[in-house]
Amino acid sequence: MRERICYFNGDYVKESEAKILISDWGLVEGGVYELTRTFNHIPFKLKEHIHRFIRSLRCLPFIKFNLTQEEILDITMEVLNRNETCLDQKEDWAIIYRATRGVQFDPSARPTFYIHTVLLPYGFSHAQLAKFYAQGAPLVVASTRQISPQCLDPKIKHTNRLSYNMAEYEAKMVDPEAFTLMLDQNGFVAEGARENFLMVSGGKLFTPKLMDCLEGVTRATIFELAREMKTEFIEADLTIANLYNADEMMVTNTSVCIVPISKFNNQPLGIPIPGPLTKKLMSAFGKLVNCDFVERALKLSSGSGGK
Amino acid sequence: MRERICYFNGDYVKESEAKILISDWGLVEGGVYELTRTFNHIPFKLKEHIHRFIRSLRCLPFIKFNLTQEEILDITMEVLNRNETCLDQKEDWAIIYRATRGVQFDPSARPTFYIHTVLLPYGFSHAQLAKFYAQGAPLVVASTRQISPQCLDPKIKHTNRLSYNMAEYEAKMVDPEAFTLMLDQNGFVAEGARENFLMVSGGKLFTPKLMDCLEGVTRATIFELAREMKTEFIEADLTIANLYNADEMMVTNTSVCIVPISKFNNQPLGIPIPGPLTKKLMSAFGKLVNCDFVERALKLSSGSGGK
Amino acid sequence: MRERICYFNGDYVKESEAKILISDWGLVEGGVYELTRTFNHIPFKLKEHIHRFIRSLRCLPFIKFNLTQEEILDITMEVLNRNETCLDQKEDWAIIYRATRGVQFDPSARPTFYIHTVLLPYGFSHAQLAKFYAQGAPLVVASTRQISPQCLDPKIKHTNRLSYNMAEYEAKMVDPEAFTLMLDQNGFVAEGARENFLMVSGGKLFTPKLMDCLEGVTRATIFELAREMKTEFIEADLTIANLYNADEMMVTNTSVCIVPISKFNNQPLGIPIPGPLTKKLMSAFGKLVNCDFVERALKLSSGSGGK
Amino acid sequence: MRERICYFNGDYVKESEAKILISDWGLVEGGVYELTRTFNHIPFKLKEHIHRFIRSLRCLPFIKFNLTQEEILDITMEVLNRNETCLDQKEDWAIIYRATRGVQFDPSARPTFYIHTVLLPYGFSHAQLAKFYAQGAPLVVASTRQISPQCLDPKIKHTNRLSYNMAEYEAKMVDPEAFTLMLDQNGFVAEGARENFLMVSGGKLFTPKLMDCLEGVTRATIFELAREMKTEFIEADLTIANLYNADEMMVTNTSVCIVPISKFNNQPLGIPIPGPLTKKLMSAFGKLVNCDFVERALKLSSGSGGK
Amino acid sequence: MRERICYFNGDYVKESEAKILISDWGLVEGGVYELTRTFNHIPFKLKEHIHRFIRSLRCLPFIKFNLTQEEILDITMEVLNRNETCLDQKEDWAIIYRATRGVQFDPSARPTFYIHTVLLPYGFSHAQLAKFYAQGAPLVVASTRQISPQCLDPKIKHTNRLSYNMAEYEAKMVDPEAFTLMLDQNGFVAEGARENFLMVSGGKLFTPKLMDCLEGVTRATIFELAREMKTEFIEADLTIANLYNADEMMVTNTSVCIVPISKFNNQPLGIPIPGPLTKKLMSAFGKLVNCDFVERALKLSSGSGGK
Amino acid sequence: MRERICYFNGDYVKESEAKILISDWGLVEGGVYELTRTFNHIPFKLKEHIHRFIRSLRCLPFIKFNLTQEEILDITMEVLNRNETCLDQKEDWAIIYRATRGVQFDPSARPTFYIHTVLLPYGFSHAQLAKFYAQGAPLVVASTRQISPQCLDPKIKHTNRLSYNMAEYEAKMVDPEAFTLMLDQNGFVAEGARENFLMVSGGKLFTPKLMDCLEGVTRATIFELAREMKTEFIEADLTIANLYNADEMMVTNTSVCIVPISKFNNQPLGIPIPGPLTKKLMSAFGKLVNCDFVERALKLSSGSGGK
Repeated sequence: MRERICYFNGDYVKESEAKILISDWGLVEGGVYELTRTFNHIPFKLKEHIHRFIRSLRCLPFIKFNLTQEEILDITMEVLNRNETCLDQKEDWAIIYRATRGVQFDPSARPTFYIHTVLLPYGFSHAQLAKFYAQGAPLVVASTRQISPQCLDPKIKHTNRLSYNMAEYEAKMVDPEAFTLMLDQNGFVAEGARENFLMVSGGKLFTPKLMDCLEGVTRATIFELAREMKTEFIEADLTIANLYNADEMMVTNTSVCIVPISKFNNQPLGIPIPGPLTKKLMSAFGKLVNCDFVERALKLSSGSGGK
Repeated sequence: MRERICYFNGDYVKESEAKILISDWGLVEGGVYELTRTFNHIPFKLKEHIHRFIRSLRCLPFIKFNLTQEEILDITMEVLNRNETCLDQKEDWAIIYRATRGVQFDPSARPTFYIHTVLLPYGFSHAQLAKFYAQGAPLVVASTRQISPQCLDPKIKHTNRLSYNMAEYEAKMVDPEAFTLMLDQNGFVAEGARENFLMVSGGKLFTPKLMDCLEGVTRATIFELAREMKTEFIEADLTIANLYNADEMMVTNTSVCIVPISKFNNQPLGIPIPGPLTKKLMSAFGKLVNCDFVERALKLSSGSGGK
Repeated sequence: MRERICYFNGDYVKESEAKILISDWGLVEGGVYELTRTFNHIPFKLKEHIHRFIRSLRCLPFIKFNLTQEEILDITMEVLNRNETCLDQKEDWAIIYRATRGVQFDPSARPTFYIHTVLLPYGFSHAQLAKFYAQGAPLVVASTRQISPQCLDPKIKHTNRLSYNMAEYEAKMVDPEAFTLMLDQNGFVAEGARENFLMVSGGKLFTPKLMDCLEGVTRATIFELAREMKTEFIEADLTIANLYNADEMMVTNTSVCIVPISKFNNQPLGIPIPGPLTKKLMSAFGKLVNCDFVERALKLSSGSGGK
Repeated sequence: MRERICYFNGDYVKESEAKILISDWGLVEGGVYELTRTFNHIPFKLKEHIHRFIRSLRCLPFIKFNLTQEEILDITMEVLNRNETCLDQKEDWAIIYRATRGVQFDPSARPTFYIHTVLLPYGFSHAQLAKFYAQGAPLVVASTRQISPQCLDPKIKHTNRLSYNMAEYEAKMVDPEAFTLMLDQNGFVAEGARENFLMVSGGKLFTPKLMDCLEGVTRATIFELAREMKTEFIEADLTIANLYNADEMMVTNTSVCIVPISKFNNQPLGIPIPGPLTKKLMSAFGKLVNCDFVERALKLSSGSGGK
Repeated sequence: MRERICYFNGDYVKESEAKILISDWGLVEGGVYELTRTFNHIPFKLKEHIHRFIRSLRCLPFIKFNLTQEEILDITMEVLNRNETCLDQKEDWAIIYRATRGVQFDPSARPTFYIHTVLLPYGFSHAQLAKFYAQGAPLVVASTRQISPQCLDPKIKHTNRLSYNMAEYEAKMVDPEAFTLMLDQNGFVAEGARENFLMVSGGKLFTPKLMDCLEGVTRATIFELAREMKTEFIEADLTIANLYNADEMMVTNTSVCIVPISKFNNQPLGIPIPGPLTKKLMSAFGKLVNCDFVERALKLSSGSGGK
Repeated sequence: MRERICYFNGDYVKESEAKILISDWGLVEGGVYELTRTFNHIPFKLKEHIHRFIRSLRCLPFIKFNLTQEEILDITMEVLNRNETCLDQKEDWAIIYRATRGVQFDPSARPTFYIHTVLLPYGFSHAQLAKFYAQGAPLVVASTRQISPQCLDPKIKHTNRLSYNMAEYEAKMVDPEAFTLMLDQNGFVAEGARENFLMVSGGKLFTPKLMDCLEGVTRATIFELAREMKTEFIEADLTIANLYNADEMMVTNTSVCIVPISKFNNQPLGIPIPGPLTKKLMSAFGKLVNCDFVERALKLSSGSGGK
């Protein structure tokens, strides 16, 4: 298999040649990242993602980043082109962007910036995803609280993720397959450790306010789908009492799209999973991106896919 | 000049050869670090520092680190030995340790761990330091608040430092040479962006409680020196009203030792800097480490040092 | 007078025979309750109340309750039937539901669950209520704060009510007839000690958000009445500054329906009580439930009622 | 076996005859309780416990309790005397006290107050306890936060315990044998769901401040034992970072005395359990109460005890 | 130049004769104020301002103020009439109202109340204002937090302004011409030290919720202008991440009307200032008040005005 | 009776001639004050008070105050001398200091600063004080919370006192003679509306930490007296549960010295008032200041005094 090419500080190089210096600020203090993906080899909402990447960078003005959104878009397309032959027809890329202040101890340092591709899915196998899509996944609330925006704003997509990891560690004490729910310091639902959270109650969609979570592109897409379905979409101060009584729950992000939740803190929802609105959204999302991600996970997990 | 050798995942290699993969968890989510130093080429309180490094790691159990404190100590000494010839007699090393979960997308990944040396001082020139030691440095309070221990405990020496960077960015809007003071979410003084904070009032030393700050090794050393001097050392909920009325203020960390503060939020202290107790502590600290860091900064800044 | 019959753990028994064991978890740690009522002997919004009871129970999954909503409804009707002869024509029942984990120290314990009837009004005499309806009642803010949803969600109708009682004790230090207003930990208006709170400003109805208070059925009914009247109904972060400037204020619950407030913290509203919108809502509510509760209180208090 | 006698509202009656009315305020809103115990049939620190019971009642002045501490002590001794024949030589009693406002809807209601005995241990079997004493028990942090003293003070020993139960439910999702650790709203360690928490670090004992937890009588006893051992006993703002690095941890209450903790959030302490200071305290406590509770649990669990 | 006349405790007197006693409660504890202005010598929204003054007073019932809104309006007009000759045609008045409890140590004290006129602009020169209107002003976030409504509600227009002054002092450390941005204790944007804050994002207007700021009359006017322009006007929990990514920002108050912001925390917006919506609002506001305040500032600053 | 002389902006003038301009910043935004007193015509701890005044000013650096402590002391003595003939032998002065930024709209403004004398007691009659000393005064907790030090530090003795006034208004709703207790935003006891709070428990003195209250000079004096009596004096996070169980309570300030509390939230302490330690402190304080303030209040209230 041919090695993938990535963009790395101005060059297109093999991934194994793109190495970070041990004093890169990204290792010292963190930086900013972004994650986009393709469906059928075509990037989805690439402009929106790149815009969010730039918005994250603007919140951390000590990173002197100076590529334009257009340049980043062009580089993305070039990376995809160069890696096209690495990708099986049924497969898709996650595309990852990272930017840091550059190298510590080097007064002339320019920001470090790279873009690389990762085969989807990652973190889960196709089989796990297929099971989640069909039967739902468990969700467990963690004790670790979301960082307040007066310290570091969750709207910034940054690489300071240890608090998310600790929360995830806690949820996985209960169930290694569990998704993680985080609360903010007031006890309001914030987001998953790697996902946005949405729930259905009385036919309406509810999701935490943006003060507590990332402005998810999938979340925004669901907002549009809901509008088309004439379903109300409400940003609210949700508490776990709301979750124990939710009609349906789901978590969303760029790589898994929409995963229905089957039980919260070990309490099953008591309805067939996915619930009706979740199912409708999964189907509509699949149509929008021209990719039935549920069926594909099923196929690839049964061995017919992956090659 | 010969290139420095670092320890990198089990090997001793040239620093330029120790490169981090672009998908290292350290770039994705952060990790743990530690910083020790030598005085006259001899490590200072090395065991205490390594113990703190291990304590930080224990708080993030998803990093499956498994070297013992003794092993880390031996590696440190080996790194110093291998780099001895790179070091001028008047110079000293900062020794930096970093550990991460290893490489994302690699299910068999072992933690990434490396130790490398950096010439002191960094971040400041000798001349700047000499000036700070002689006349004090400005201190400015930032709007960005310290992250709560219920999100990510400041007692962990981690690489999720973007909130510190933002605070530093704010303080440097006022004065590019300013040190940064951070408050916690209750408004109590927490720590500097890269230093512990101490102040003198009525002949006693005051410093924030450990709920809000790193357990600084220099801070602990000053505690011991204060005990020898029969000076009370009090951990307290300090507010900025306490700072406006402090008799003396200082910031401390491993690389700068003790820097006296000359003015807080543009208000000068109105006494010769360093104040009497600060001066006594700087002198006692110099004796303890067998290195008059004030005089050395002065010499090296005037061109006679640094080679 | 015939003794009332209650439902008690599966049986219909005389109230004096329905006794709780001294180690019932309800006495040890608390449980869940619900309160419905009849108007003219007919239960009001019984399904909504039972649904809320089930919602409360779902939030406390350690109570292994397993009756369905339909079963609870049937039991309620049976209890009412059996007690019909105890009720004068002009009178109505409050119907109380309580569920606990059962009996401590008994490993095979099933939840304790009982339903019983109480003659309305209680806590107040007819005369007091009549006065409140005609002239309004005083409202006093307490120092005790509402419990945060991250500890115990106020949306759960539970029997852990000591904080409400303390708040009530404080308000009654000012005026024994005062209703009690509670704030949350941010200082926003939460609810009364036994009521929801609503106010009128600029022709609109305002009430605290559900993060801070019970989802009152009367509150929801007023929301519907307001919609019919084309009156805006807004859930908001209210502060006591809003109350000092409110045009009208009222408290609501199942047993008293709607009580207008005449003065807040000893400051009279300076308008005839009830204010125009309160009056309209009281009248519309009376029509909806087919019971002029104001007139009835007046009649029963003047001796013509109550038998 | 003879039925036990309890004190109930002025009388000494069989437990099965001491029944609470369904409208007792204890079931409606909660009340106050206390728990003492005997060692070798002799009450331990009975005066201290009764004093705490009275202190709890003073904080809830709407309960018009009017027995003196002496009267409660006399009743306790009388209850013990009447039940002496129910108790095997190797067994001991827990003695439980509860007080409520009395009966709702009864304007002449006097407080409900009763005292009854329960065979120790409860909640755990002898075998479980013996295992915990020998090998330690797991401890898991819950997401549910401790109620703030500005809502309901944890220093009051009250029966509003649903938040403790929810926390316990969460911890038992991880391990059904786990003890539960609760944090306060600032993220500081508060207490266990039914125990005080203590830890050892650097040879010193640390425990949360009384703002966050019950004034445990066992906790106070350990304070005295520590003083005799010249071991520092420090009330501090502990965070979970402190727990991940504790040398030893233990939970204490009246019925289990001292239980050593073997692992926190699934991370083992890495030392033989109980740790040296815990062991010393367990032994000293056993001597003080003239009862080797560890050996007794072992004996009774192996079938030689309990009759 | 003739001396201005003010209203002072019932009389119309020369300003130099209206002196406050040294024990006036206004100097001891503070009071309430209001600020209105004229455009072309005609008061703007005078009733709204006087209503807000009365609302502020109602929140502080220990000030026994008893003039009606009509009386205050009449006095205002009389003050304007008496000072008409002091005012150049191109000039306008700010009209200031203050009320205090009266004089301490005087048991018969009546509230102190006075109304006086001040020539606009104040605090800034015409030239500074002209520059701000044309090129925007800098905005800097302060460390000092907005006082919580549970302490003193920001909706009250009171004279307890030291926290605003401290915030302003901090912002002016960065830039003496900077406007000051304050956050509340959760880190949400509250208001300027003397202005409301508004921003534009995606064509919509955003401004902090009223829990955190004064109900600005200019703010309300912009709300009306936005409605006419079919521009959404949203009260939201804004964080500084929102500001770093705002399309446009502005601050507003009665005396400066609308000032566009050119850079936030030293980061320029990167568009011509004022931005398109800000410009449109400035123009519409100028038309509404029949005064092109931008042009006037320019004229008066170039020396053609002021006399 | 001769009119008193005060110091006013550099001059010694009759009080009636010392008038503040209507645009003084003290009326616009507040300022700083101090209050000292004489015992037998001799100032008590004058240096300590003046030092606190300077400390307050240092926290508000926008007030450009520039008198030295020595100058303020000299002025104080001169004011006392000039007023000596106004003072009856049995009477004493409160001495009040106020400083503000000067006059708004006047670019050359110097700070306003004045010192004047007030006959003691004020706020209370001699008879009220005598009753309080002999039988204790009621204390009531208010709903209004103490302002956080991150907004405006309570250690600054400033004239922004509206939140104290609101709290006082609330307490006086319960009892017009009540003293007011304020809690901070965490629910910890802060201070009285005009006094420090102290309580006795188990023979020890407890008082809130300085983060929440003024550094009272009387409070500090009691600390010294307690040290002489070998009584522990502990600064602690007190909650109202501590107050309901206090053995003794007292409030202190410069003008009333020490007032014992007889009941808290209408719950009497149940012991003769003043309690033993309070009595001892009152007596010791009287000796220290060479003035039996209890006896004097009694004499003056019975008509033998006051002339």
